[in-house]
Formats: sequence, structure tokens, C-alpha cells
Amino acid sequence: MKSYSIGIDIGGTNTGFGLVDEKGNIISTTSISTKDFDIVENYLDEIVKHIILLIERCEDKSLLKGVGIGAPNGNYYNGTIEHAPNLKFHGIIPVKEYIETKLKGKGYDLKVTLTNDANAAAIGEMIYGGAKGIKNFIMITLGTGVGSGIVVDGKVVYGFDGFAGEVGHTIVQPEGRMCGCGRRGCVETYSSVTGLRKTALELINNTKTKSSLREICQENIGGKAIYNAAINGDKLALKCFEITAKMLAIGMANAVAVTSPEKIFLFGGLTKAGDLLMNPLKKYFEESLFVVFQNKIDLEISHLDENTAAILGAAALTY
Amino acid sequence: MKSYSIGIDIGGTNTGFGLVDEKGNIISTTSISTKDFDIVENYLDEIVKHIILLIERCEDKSLLKGVGIGAPNGNYYNGTIEHAPNLKFHGIIPVKEYIETKLKGKGYDLKVTLTNDANAAAIGEMIYGGAKGIKNFIMITLGTGVGSGIVVDGKVVYGFDGFAGEVGHTIVQPEGRMCGCGRRGCVETYSSVTGLRKTALELINNTKTKSSLREICQENIGGKAIYNAAINGDKLALKCFEITAKMLAIGMANAVAVTSPEKIFLFGGLTKAGDLLMNPLKKYFEESLFVVFQNKIDLEISHLDENTAAILGAAALTY
Repeated sequence: MKSYSIGIDIGGTNTGFGLVDEKGNIISTTSISTKDFDIVENYLDEIVKHIILLIERCEDKSLLKGVGIGAPNGNYYNGTIEHAPNLKFHGIIPVKEYIETKLKGKGYDLKVTLTNDANAAAIGEMIYGGAKGIKNFIMITLGTGVGSGIVVDGKVVYGFDGFAGEVGHTIVQPEGRMCGCGRRGCVETYSSVTGLRKTALELINNTKTKSSLREICQENIGGKAIYNAAINGDKLALKCFEITAKMLAIGMANAVAVTSPEKIFLFGGLTKAGDLLMNPLKKYFEESLFVVFQNKIDLEISHLDENTAAILGAAALTY
Repeated sequence: MKSYSIGIDIGGTNTGFGLVDEKGNIISTTSISTKDFDIVENYLDEIVKHIILLIERCEDKSLLKGVGIGAPNGNYYNGTIEHAPNLKFHGIIPVKEYIETKLKGKGYDLKVTLTNDANAAAIGEMIYGGAKGIKNFIMITLGTGVGSGIVVDGKVVYGFDGFAGEVGHTIVQPEGRMCGCGRRGCVETYSSVTGLRKTALELINNTKTKSSLREICQENIGGKAIYNAAINGDKLALKCFEITAKMLAIGMANAVAVTSPEKIFLFGGLTKAGDLLMNPLKKYFEESLFVVFQNKIDLEISHLDENTAAILGAAALTY
């Protein structure tokens, strides 16, 4: 039967909204600038306005299933955003409760569901993407940070307190590089876009490997510059992707040993590197796997369009 | 209502059988020597004989719920033992099917359920032990190897192919010590009884730390000798427990980041070391945890009696 959901993707820079049908078609979108708001209530009130805007654009409001929100540090159990480092709003924000109450006050009785962005991406992959019909898989999101959504037996694993799925903050090099989380050697500190950049700077400063990247001002060395150099066969840039892949591979292999998935999907900015990332990743992943899992687990780049995936994933939360 | 199960613990040396009531009381036991059998069919036929022996000892056969088996490399989905390194029987053994068929041939229509020993221990803890009412926990078994059973939302995680729960074979030191599985730096190669012994030999041979263990023939250095030395304040022996604890702590913290449990239970030979293991383990575990999990997760030694836990866990498989 025809049905609609509203999906909201909360990011540090922008917040995107989409009215989505049950097949994953985005009927209408809108967006606001997250960073323009200093007071959380003003931000949430603006979100409510845009939800109502989309409700009004829905041809039959009785077919609306609800509102789904994907957010950094989103807690599914509580419907809260908790201590998100990339948002201006600090502490614990009761997003679900606030929005539901405001909507009700305006005569809209809609359920709001919230989870973290990587879990939303996993659900999006399961409902609309490459994980249709797959009961056990892992979604890895490679952006500024490394996130993950773990699906076991067809359900996202939230665990005791709603924070399960942090493959990015598993330790793969105990005495290794400092991570933003305060510990050493997490996957994220190597295998995020930020980590790739750190690796490039380390190799530039600590090795004598020739590289076109040495000609660029260090401030301008980012994912794109490293990608462009690597595509042209630059050895230092290729080494950056190799290190990124190796650390991620160990983290993924360790997560496999815990939950035994059928597939792992990769999503986000770094996947644009294509084979530059995927070739060393597949090699190191197989090498890092416990024998009972070897040659069994497919690695795939997400089937979802990066521009709309977060909204789709959030919308899929209402199912 | 009163009910009974038969629990079977398959080990490399012995196979134990127990008739268990719904409260976890063991009504009757028997055992055979696993290593006396070279031909797998003879071994399975003997198991069938002992199952029937216990059925006959049950006051009311209509109250029997089934047979549960915990086994090394046991696959829950297929009811098979697959390539178990500590058994004489090689390849894939269709244990469930063989036993069910033989029992049926003798007029006993009982369902057989099989899983690996660490999963059986987790189920035992959940039904009869300290994990009653706990929906998300991890069971770590510390013996010759390191096994684990992962419970999410009240169910053991088996994953795609039935082999989930291998925290012992997660990599915590990529360039580290060789593991029996062929890779380097797994938890098992440090934090099993075998790993503890390897650590002691390494420290004896590669450091000058004074130790009473240097007076013992290296062949006799095992868990007990290291424990005795540590209890007497021997620095080298204490260092062994510290390294064991540190590597296990990282593996556990990484598993926590994946599934977010409420508690972790520890089971098996090494837990007899008590505070010698648990004090450094608690310290390193907290240090290794991602911030959202810190100071939330209890570490507890299993509430089950080690002598009967495996049989109880296996019996609980029938629930």
C-alpha cells in the first residue's frame, strides 16, 4: 500500500529533509543550515516548521507513517542526541520528545524515531539498497569520522544503552596514533578522511618518499589532493590508501569475528576513491580474517546515492 | 511446570552427560572418554547409548524437552562440528542429524540442539547463572583457548554462518605474537592459559627480571606455577597476568564497541586467578573503552560452577 515518511538528516553543517514514499522515491526536499543556530530550541522549532512544510506537500496526510531522524550521536532508545562533538548544541538534547510535543501542539500526531547516522545508513541499505533480504551485515561509513551500523538477524544492534556499532572506535594499534576520542590506535584515527590526511602529513614529514604532495601547502592536503596524486601513481599517496585500508581491514575483521555478517557495505566520502581503497582493503581484509570467515564475506560499496542516502535511511526508520 | 533436558559437554578429553531439571539441578550424570575413540561413528553411537541411559533415569519421559550439546567448533545452524582442532575427528561431523536418527531408530523422538561451547556457556549463564534477566551481555571463556558467546536482545548471536562470537580471534596487536590460527596478535595468543605460559617463557628468555619461575624446568611452567609465583609477589609472574589482562581488555573493549553489552562474564580456568587477573583486567578494560561505554559495564566471574557449567549450558539449549 502507498505510504510516506519524512526523513531528516542532521549534520554539523546542513540539515536535510525529504518526503519519501515506500519505494524510496524522494517526492520533495528542503534543507536548513544547522550551523546558523546557536540556541537548540530555535533549531528544533525550525525543524518542526520544515516537517510541517513537507506534511502539507503530502497528497494524503493519512498515509504518513512518521518522521525518522539520523543524527550524530543519536540514541535510538531515548530519542536524544548526546554530546555530539560536531554540533554546536552540547549535552543531551531530547529531540524526539521536543519535536513530537510541538507537532502535537500544532495538530499533527506523528511518531518521531531517531538513531545515529550510521545506523540510519544501515537501515537505508536494508530497506532501499544492496542489503535487501540480507539478515546479517555491517555498514561502515567513511567520512570525517568512521561510523558503523551492525545488523544481526534483520535488526540493527543497539545494545544495552543504544550505542552499539562503533567499529570506528575499536582499537587496532594499541600504542598507535592519538584518536580524537582520547585513546590511541582507533580505526577512526587512520581510516577516516581526517585519518587519511594525518597519514599523508606523517609520511611527508617522517619519510623521504618522493611525492607531488610535497609541492602542495600542507593545509591544502586533503582527501581530494591525495586521491589525485594516487591516481597518477604517486607512491606516497598510494601508501596513504594502503595504511587507511589496512587499519580499516583489521577493525572490520574484528567486527566480523563478533557478529559474523554475510556482507559489509561501505559508504561515504572515502568510497569515492574506488579501487584505490577497495583493492588494498579486500587484500588486507582477507588476511586479517579468522580462518572460518575467509573467502566468504563480500565487501561492497553502498548501493545508495550519497546525496540522498542519509534522508532515505532516516525515512526508513519509520518502517 | 516440571521439565527435564539432557546436556552434553563434548571436550577433547572427556564427554560429560547430565540429566538436568528446569531449575538447573543435575539429577544424574555419566561420562565417556572422548579420546578413546578413533572412529567418529563409534563415538556418536556411544553418545546415543548414554543419552538413552539418562532417558531411562528420568522419572517421566514425557517431561523431556530434548538434548543439548556444547562442542568445540559446534555450528548451531547445521548441528555439525566443523574442523575442531582439539578433536580426533576431522572434517564436518553431522552430529545432530546422526544422533536424532539413531534415537528415532530406538523409539526416542527427541530434538537435538548443538552449539559451540562458549555459546553454551553464555546460554547457561542466561538461564541458570548471573545473566538471568540481562538482555545484552558477553561471555568470555578463558581456557586452553579464548572463546566467547555474544548475547544481543536476549538471543545468542550466531550471524550469517553460525560462527559469530570469536572475540578470542580478534586482532589486538597487528605485528604481535603468532597465534595458533595462523595470524598474528589475536587475543587468544596472549590471554588463554597457553598464552599466559607463552608470556612467561618470553619474559624469562628476553628479560632479566628476577623470578622464582627461573628455577622451574620450562616444561613445567603452566598456569598453576605462574599463579603460585604471582601470589607470592613474583614480579615476572605478576607481569604475565598484566599482559594477559591488557590484551584481553582491548579485545573485550572492541567487542563492547560493536554490541554494547550491559555486563561481561568471565568463565574458565584462568578466572581461578581471581584478583590477580581481575584487578589489571578492570583497569585496562576501562582504559580501553570508548568514552560512551566507560564506567558502565560490569565485569563478573561466571556464577556457574565450572564442573557442571558446560553440561548446564548445553541442557539450556533446549529452552
